[in-house]
Amino acid sequence: MTHEPIHHLLSAKDLPPESIEYLFSRTEAFKRMRGILPADEKALDRETVTNIFWEASTRTRVSFQMAAWRMGARVVNIAPSTSSVTKGETLDDTIATLRALGCRYFVIRHATSGEPARLAMNAGREAHVLNAGDGTNEHPSQALLDAFTIRERKKSFNGLQVAILGDILRSRVARSNLHLLSQLGAKCRVSGPAGLLPERLDVPQGTIVKTADEAIRGADVVMVLRLQKEREGKIVVDEADYRKNFSLTPQRLELAHPDAIVLHPGPINRGIEIDSSVADGPRSMILRQVENGLFMRMAIFELLRGEER
Amino acid sequence: MTHEPIHHLLSAKDLPPESIEYLFSRTEAFKRMRGILPADEKALDRETVTNIFWEASTRTRVSFQMAAWRMGARVVNIAPSTSSVTKGETLDDTIATLRALGCRYFVIRHATSGEPARLAMNAGREAHVLNAGDGTNEHPSQALLDAFTIRERKKSFNGLQVAILGDILRSRVARSNLHLLSQLGAKCRVSGPAGLLPERLDVPQGTIVKTADEAIRGADVVMVLRLQKEREGKIVVDEADYRKNFSLTPQRLELAHPDAIVLHPGPINRGIEIDSSVADGPRSMILRQVENGLFMRMAIFELLRGEER
Amino acid sequence: MTHEPIHHLLSAKDLPPESIEYLFSRTEAFKRMRGILPADEKALDRETVTNIFWEASTRTRVSFQMAAWRMGARVVNIAPSTSSVTKGETLDDTIATLRALGCRYFVIRHATSGEPARLAMNAGREAHVLNAGDGTNEHPSQALLDAFTIRERKKSFNGLQVAILGDILRSRVARSNLHLLSQLGAKCRVSGPAGLLPERLDVPQGTIVKTADEAIRGADVVMVLRLQKEREGKIVVDEADYRKNFSLTPQRLELAHPDAIVLHPGPINRGIEIDSSVADGPRSMILRQVENGLFMRMAIFELLRGEER
Repeated sequence: MTHEPIHHLLSAKDLPPESIEYLFSRTEAFKRMRGILPADEKALDRETVTNIFWEASTRTRVSFQMAAWRMGARVVNIAPSTSSVTKGETLDDTIATLRALGCRYFVIRHATSGEPARLAMNAGREAHVLNAGDGTNEHPSQALLDAFTIRERKKSFNGLQVAILGDILRSRVARSNLHLLSQLGAKCRVSGPAGLLPERLDVPQGTIVKTADEAIRGADVVMVLRLQKEREGKIVVDEADYRKNFSLTPQRLELAHPDAIVLHPGPINRGIEIDSSVADGPRSMILRQVENGLFMRMAIFELLRGEER
Repeated sequence: MTHEPIHHLLSAKDLPPESIEYLFSRTEAFKRMRGILPADEKALDRETVTNIFWEASTRTRVSFQMAAWRMGARVVNIAPSTSSVTKGETLDDTIATLRALGCRYFVIRHATSGEPARLAMNAGREAHVLNAGDGTNEHPSQALLDAFTIRERKKSFNGLQVAILGDILRSRVARSNLHLLSQLGAKCRVSGPAGLLPERLDVPQGTIVKTADEAIRGADVVMVLRLQKEREGKIVVDEADYRKNFSLTPQRLELAHPDAIVLHPGPINRGIEIDSSVADGPRSMILRQVENGLFMRMAIFELLRGEER
Repeated sequence: MTHEPIHHLLSAKDLPPESIEYLFSRTEAFKRMRGILPADEKALDRETVTNIFWEASTRTRVSFQMAAWRMGARVVNIAPSTSSVTKGETLDDTIATLRALGCRYFVIRHATSGEPARLAMNAGREAHVLNAGDGTNEHPSQALLDAFTIRERKKSFNGLQVAILGDILRSRVARSNLHLLSQLGAKCRVSGPAGLLPERLDVPQGTIVKTADEAIRGADVVMVLRLQKEREGKIVVDEADYRKNFSLTPQRLELAHPDAIVLHPGPINRGIEIDSSVADGPRSMILRQVENGLFMRMAIFELLRGEER
């Protein structure tokens, strides 16, 4: 398969269609192989991947780590509290140092929107930056694994109705998904508490609707966002209100298409944005998203590596 | 060798005798091989082991990590401060997530008694939970490596006199050892400061005696417990008093059988529960316990894996 | 090549000349091989290296970790906050425990000068201790990689003029470099703020000069030290003053030999002890030092391993 090489994964916006197709196809292949590749297909053989997680994470960090291992790489984990950043080193200089040590892949989660893109610009030709979530901006690997999971079940994105519920304003998952799903041909209806909605969406196929019920009605996919209590600052959300109006309960899910599936990027707040019976129910794709995420991240590493082979 | 497969290692109580025998025999074999296995005997080949240590640890964590490596596995370390638990995720959901990523072995240390057993119940058929110490409840791998160390020197447990000294009430090491050693046929005499003794022991072959000297007199094995200063809450122990009445000094050790051996689970408080000259002396098995622990944990992984091969 | 085996790397002082020559030659070889060794030349095959970093570090910790991996070893990282040291275990007992688990190489960074040497004395015949920086005492692997980097460019140390600038008094990098460079035949001129200079240097070929300009004039190598803001205690440095009198600016660098090279152990404080245009300029060896450090540390592991092969 030919595909336009891409060097960094910074955003789910404007990904070349053939790159998306490549990722879907390779994710599928890796899943069929249960992630076990013959030695000569391990695209990151002898490479080192550095995980730089400036915010807490289990699933994304471990998923990238395991994907890198499966592609043949070593993984170095850097945490802010024990690194030279405590001595005043800039993250640019940390990356330059790790580059000089031979590391070429940098998986970066950062509280500041745009930081991975900025770092990628300064990191030099040989470094690949993978955005693992930056502030309220983007989380492209999450959107890709979400799209793959939807595609597994729904086959086509054309005209697919996707409801996105919750903290739209601050959610990097929502932003990446809106870009990617729109590009793929799905129609997104988003809804959330007044304070957590943007003025308008900057994707053509997305609309803001007033109530969760309106967003869910007839939807093929219901994507529930995490109420990010750890991000609370100026915005205060009334939790009881949130539960009442936006929690995905079995009753609310009844409004969706009979074959609707439920997605959530995790970690979930049980009983807040989603009912346990829904999260653990037959329509929930939550653990399948995690499983697919491993294979998608393997495919992402392979895609970025591609141009050099 | 045939053996009843067991799925989790949660407790040293009621371990099937053939499982114990299997563990002893395999630990012996691994020790003879100095822990170096041919590729096709690595029972955890392609597996991932997750270390979830919710309390500080060096020896147990590293021992499980090295044992897993020697059995062919990858090891992921999860620490509470950088994990999604800080975002309110339950540990059950963390384990389900890691399961979806392909991890099947979970080594768990937790401050709450019974937490590994509870997690094992919810973790689903494919997950294996290894209790690496839960609250004041159990520490089964420690008891198994202790028993193996005793067996190396004393050959038979039948009628063996074991003195256990110190903080009996809160010691998960004492509890697991009392269960296992009783089952194997040893007789345990325990002693400790008034506030650190239970009302009664729930093992048939164990008795509480008043003084350390009474426990030690004629003992074949003297097991010294750690004064767990980090667990102090309502119970306050007078350290000077403790030293005077319970510290294992050379003089006190004179009361034991001339061939008596000394065990301690570590880390030791030198000069508090044990004299440095005893800890570093010829009867001390302390470092041998650590060494045997590596091979015992390899055997434990193999035992749990057994049923699926 | 024959060489006198050395067992620990504690100091850059009094290293046998043939050991230094061996390290230079092997570093060169590993660099030519881009760090990729055939399986049967991996001197640490089946070995475990423990990184014990009691102070923050990115480059030195990761460099030792990657060097150990390239030599075939497993790497265990121990951090004070999650280790048994929090339970009162001595570091000697931690090392004895890890020794019993089969680990034989201990890379130690510690805030107390002399601690690695003390630990090495107690660690027993089979343990190798590598000092990765102890207090204000020494950082021998840094001096070795610095010397290798100088030799790459300047070929001979004989009569080479080296300027060392900054916090001489508290710099373990300066101390190790002064010892090693003097032994190799270079002449060092050091300069720094009044409060950060020792009374006298204990190396025959080193002299203290009054101003940075005097140190730099005609120098073949300018080594800039980090202003260690994290070490500030009784000594308070006026940063504006420091910049004015000691910062390596392009103007100041003009005073050096036209072919002069610039070294800095990192992490750098841009705009404080060194100007960004110099740090990122054509004479800067900063990233080359990092790159060479990986290969030098591979050579160090091989040297220490040597005697047992």
